[in-house]
Amino acid sequence: MKFKAEINVMPHKELLDPQGKTVARNMDHAGILGVQDVRIGKRIEVALEAADENAARTLIDQACQKFLANMIMENYTFEIKPA
Amino acid sequence: MKFKAEINVMPHKELLDPQGKTVARNMDHAGILGVQDVRIGKRIEVALEAADENAARTLIDQACQKFLANMIMENYTFEIKPA
Repeated sequence: MKFKAEINVMPHKELLDPQGKTVARNMDHAGILGVQDVRIGKRIEVALEAADENAARTLIDQACQKFLANMIMENYTFEIKPA
Repeated sequence: MKFKAEINVMPHKELLDPQGKTVARNMDHAGILGVQDVRIGKRIEVALEAADENAARTLIDQACQKFLANMIMENYTFEIKPA
């Protein structure tokens, strides 16, 4: 079966996100007012083939831990959808 | 009112995504089998204050066009949620 995984990898809440802070400040300077906080992470979309949804979930979880997220600095969430 | 915007910025479908291609190949080499395609973009989470949901939507749309997405290479989608 074909699935699509939508993965979000974000910096841990406790960590400063300098890229996000810079974007937030620039918005303010550009007159886009009301922004209080910006956090920037990665969005990864994976098309995959697996026996069933559980197998797809295990595969993506492995991929996140091995490749896609740096577990020291980031956390990840994902959804698996039929493609 | 306080809102949270969840923004996804992805490379256009027509464009090659060399970073995604590399990750897909590495997964295969590492025994994570079944992956057919990987696309890597940005996930941006914004906390903001606005008069209502419509105002929040307009603000985030502006921010995407001015700062967050490169409209030549990327497209964006977002959701606004009450915070």
